[in-house]
Amino acid sequence: MTSPYDDFATGAANFVPLSPLSFLPRTASIYPDDEAIIHGKRRYSWSQVFARCRRLSTGLKQIGIGYGDTVSILAPNIPEMVEAHFGVPASGAVLNAINTRLDPETIAYILSHGECKVLIVDLEFAPTASAAIALMTPDEAKKITIIDIIDSEYDGKNTSIGTMDYEGLLAKGNEDDPWQLPDNEWNALTLNYTSGTTNRPKGVVYHHRGSYLMSMGTVSDWMHAQKPRYLALVPLFHCNGWGHSWTVTLMGGVIVCTRAITAKAIFDAIADHGITHLGGAPIVLSMIINAEDSHRREIARGIKVMTAGAPPPPSVIREMESLGFDVLHVYGLTETYGHVTLNVWHDKWDHDETVNRDLMLARQGVAMAMLEEQDVVDSQTMIPVPADGETIGEIVFRGNTVMKGYFKNPEATSEAFAGGYFHSGDLAVKHPDGYVQIKDRLKDIIISGGENISSVEVEATLHKHASVALAAVVAMPDEKWGEVPCAFIELKDGASATEEELINFCREHMASFKRPKKVVFTDIPKTATGKMQKFELRRMINDGEIR
Amino acid sequence: MTSPYDDFATGAANFVPLSPLSFLPRTASIYPDDEAIIHGKRRYSWSQVFARCRRLSTGLKQIGIGYGDTVSILAPNIPEMVEAHFGVPASGAVLNAINTRLDPETIAYILSHGECKVLIVDLEFAPTASAAIALMTPDEAKKITIIDIIDSEYDGKNTSIGTMDYEGLLAKGNEDDPWQLPDNEWNALTLNYTSGTTNRPKGVVYHHRGSYLMSMGTVSDWMHAQKPRYLALVPLFHCNGWGHSWTVTLMGGVIVCTRAITAKAIFDAIADHGITHLGGAPIVLSMIINAEDSHRREIARGIKVMTAGAPPPPSVIREMESLGFDVLHVYGLTETYGHVTLNVWHDKWDHDETVNRDLMLARQGVAMAMLEEQDVVDSQTMIPVPADGETIGEIVFRGNTVMKGYFKNPEATSEAFAGGYFHSGDLAVKHPDGYVQIKDRLKDIIISGGENISSVEVEATLHKHASVALAAVVAMPDEKWGEVPCAFIELKDGASATEEELINFCREHMASFKRPKKVVFTDIPKTATGKMQKFELRRMINDGEIR
Repeated sequence: MTSPYDDFATGAANFVPLSPLSFLPRTASIYPDDEAIIHGKRRYSWSQVFARCRRLSTGLKQIGIGYGDTVSILAPNIPEMVEAHFGVPASGAVLNAINTRLDPETIAYILSHGECKVLIVDLEFAPTASAAIALMTPDEAKKITIIDIIDSEYDGKNTSIGTMDYEGLLAKGNEDDPWQLPDNEWNALTLNYTSGTTNRPKGVVYHHRGSYLMSMGTVSDWMHAQKPRYLALVPLFHCNGWGHSWTVTLMGGVIVCTRAITAKAIFDAIADHGITHLGGAPIVLSMIINAEDSHRREIARGIKVMTAGAPPPPSVIREMESLGFDVLHVYGLTETYGHVTLNVWHDKWDHDETVNRDLMLARQGVAMAMLEEQDVVDSQTMIPVPADGETIGEIVFRGNTVMKGYFKNPEATSEAFAGGYFHSGDLAVKHPDGYVQIKDRLKDIIISGGENISSVEVEATLHKHASVALAAVVAMPDEKWGEVPCAFIELKDGASATEEELINFCREHMASFKRPKKVVFTDIPKTATGKMQKFELRRMINDGEIR
Repeated sequence: MTSPYDDFATGAANFVPLSPLSFLPRTASIYPDDEAIIHGKRRYSWSQVFARCRRLSTGLKQIGIGYGDTVSILAPNIPEMVEAHFGVPASGAVLNAINTRLDPETIAYILSHGECKVLIVDLEFAPTASAAIALMTPDEAKKITIIDIIDSEYDGKNTSIGTMDYEGLLAKGNEDDPWQLPDNEWNALTLNYTSGTTNRPKGVVYHHRGSYLMSMGTVSDWMHAQKPRYLALVPLFHCNGWGHSWTVTLMGGVIVCTRAITAKAIFDAIADHGITHLGGAPIVLSMIINAEDSHRREIARGIKVMTAGAPPPPSVIREMESLGFDVLHVYGLTETYGHVTLNVWHDKWDHDETVNRDLMLARQGVAMAMLEEQDVVDSQTMIPVPADGETIGEIVFRGNTVMKGYFKNPEATSEAFAGGYFHSGDLAVKHPDGYVQIKDRLKDIIISGGENISSVEVEATLHKHASVALAAVVAMPDEKWGEVPCAFIELKDGASATEEELINFCREHMASFKRPKKVVFTDIPKTATGKMQKFELRRMINDGEIR
């Protein structure tokens, strides 16, 4: 098929590769003197951030970094971490932000597998970085140039481990060099390793096109504001902080950094800096809800909160809303650049007594604007499940905010993309209105006497109990039933409950066969991003620590 | 340069062509029962609009339309016009929305040059369409299938001219057929003929990628609202209504249609339908400002207004703001899908007495998010002019919302893209803060005694006079000076002024040599989109009608 409409080639005037790197020069040109990043006593304007990012980019080139090299960073959400999200890819390199809570062995694996050439390390994590490097072969280790970040807001005693510090690297750069976009929007932008539960972490590769569209879709679905004031709680090493620092740059806003994430720090930042938007895992929202009175501050109503990372218990959303926050529940994975579905709330539900508000709040919802399609299918046949709210299938995705693939792992990549969709590994139902609701991770479903029990559902029931602060439910082997639910519980400060009381509570509030057969009161292990580490709970069961 | 990051191919899971056609199925799935289009007594929900667009798409296929065919439409902003923006390209065809105020001869030229296969005509324009067809050769004419739109809100007496009506075409279609996106985001989406001043109109070809990004950028820079209620005043035949009906669909909003654009209709629509956003040329804003008291209604404050099409006089913006509207002044051309720059207002200017507010309001500003670059250059050397607010150069653009090119006109295309930028033909200065301000069209500058006189500046001065409703200034030949400014004036209702009074007013308010030497009181001819037809004024001068 041809037509006269085909007689046009793309050219410099009408085709530009999509990249979030475009956002920075534009915002620096429109708002040069406006606040861009706030961190403790440090302040940067957009022209300063742009100049520093150009220095970072050209400084990296000066030390031999270029197209397709990997630059890793181990840092909290500080200005240098934001700058790395622009300056590193502008050099042609790929940014690999590493989860700071990982153990040295895993970090060593990531540095090695990711072919790291430069490792930028905040002093707080210098010992971890040193330990990781020590685990590598000398040949591998000597390929890595270490750069220290010496943050004035860091109050620990660790000392430098690098060959130069970050400001020294910037001094090598030139802020007058032109800002370079990628030649191709499909070029790699960042490398994000999955948290890894039982297996080795996999390296998820993002491209420029995807992160550009992620930002645009995040604006159209959530960040409806010019010059938002954003509190950076979502770690930038987690899906690049859901892409939010690129998005805030697009919107000419302010990024407020945090080293420590505590209820006091959050309330202070919101009150002192007029925060309008923030993101956080449900555990961070619980931190806000359960803050000590002395840490609470008077804050504005209507602050927009995006939450994801784990299905938020409806009670958490309701309590946040009663504090005046406006919560949007989204869902996604590292492989989808973060959030790709959102739980659109319909105003008419507010006035309809037949609507089960908790059920509505618990759903992961519908595709965001930048995702082409979400569906729930039989993983093998790819046939969609009926939209009956009951039949469980796997959530699959298709769209421009799906990763390029797993770094140096073509088998895992083709498995993940089987049938032309990305397979999330999450089990869900599709409701008659098309909204998707996660029932469990493929590996987290509990099969008891032939019945599927959703650990998420049992957890949601436990969260309704007044004494429960956090609940994690996993399968426990059982001679009679095959598997039964075992609940791990953190109680609220000063609250109390017994095992029997919680089991009876579950029996009263859900199908009896789904109730936990065992309740353990303990601190639940979590990842840096607030996800409960269920593999650790399973290990405790399998090692016989729980009986 | 290669790296392991290059080892990824795009696939169905992670690459989807960008297209505004994506917006419709998503919004229809999230908001199936919500209002989508309002037109007089007619109401359509999003599921209805989607069903009708699928019927239009498949109905067109039934009558032989497919990839690369041209489907033209001659209609006001009615539901069928909105549907055509989705249903026509979904069939693989290219939508050619024709300016309804054009003369039959020009329309015949467009139908012929555009290779029209189907012409969809609202009854109001049936006589014009018939006259146009009659001017074509019988061979050309017989290739065109005519479809009538019989709008219940049309109260004229014209009768059908087509082989079937629009609803009959929909009846041939199938709303269960899958919705098809283009294979390639670079495929042609629409064909928009420039208004054409002295030359034949040129056919500007838009692609799917461009219109998708236009919508996303319009959201991030302006439409900060889920479910906006949009009043469709900008004719959809003008840059596809600045892309707004795609953008409103993306945001799940409501499109309120209008057959006639009058102050009464605008106030009624705003008040009755809770309008939150609208676009309009400055002349439409003047209509609102100068409305009769009996046509005014009480309306909400903070309604967002996007204005473009001609530089809005600062007084118009100020008067709109005093009525409670929130006006954004943007600029662009048919070749850039409409608006690509915006005049970002800085709050600090509100409190700074040294700021010349009128100057600030008059500027076209900075690049919008979807445009990569705007600059002002010497047209020949492509060297940027200094950012001094004085040196005049040509505005040039580079970005993804620049047309594919001119249809069947490679010479004009390559001329427009000379040097890797699109040449706007508009003359401007660049201020020290990077904001661009148009001084004139290349052909509208008046060269008097070797000095450049900006007709825009003279017009802005005349607009400050209390009696002036509209001013148009063009060059008039002069033996001594070469050219001198000649002003055409429409007075406000009931107001009066003399030629001498206006010339003296200009002498007092601007450099004396720029004052008009001649003032003519008359109705100024305008295009359908409210642009003053200066070529007509020049013709009057050249033909000796003005002395």
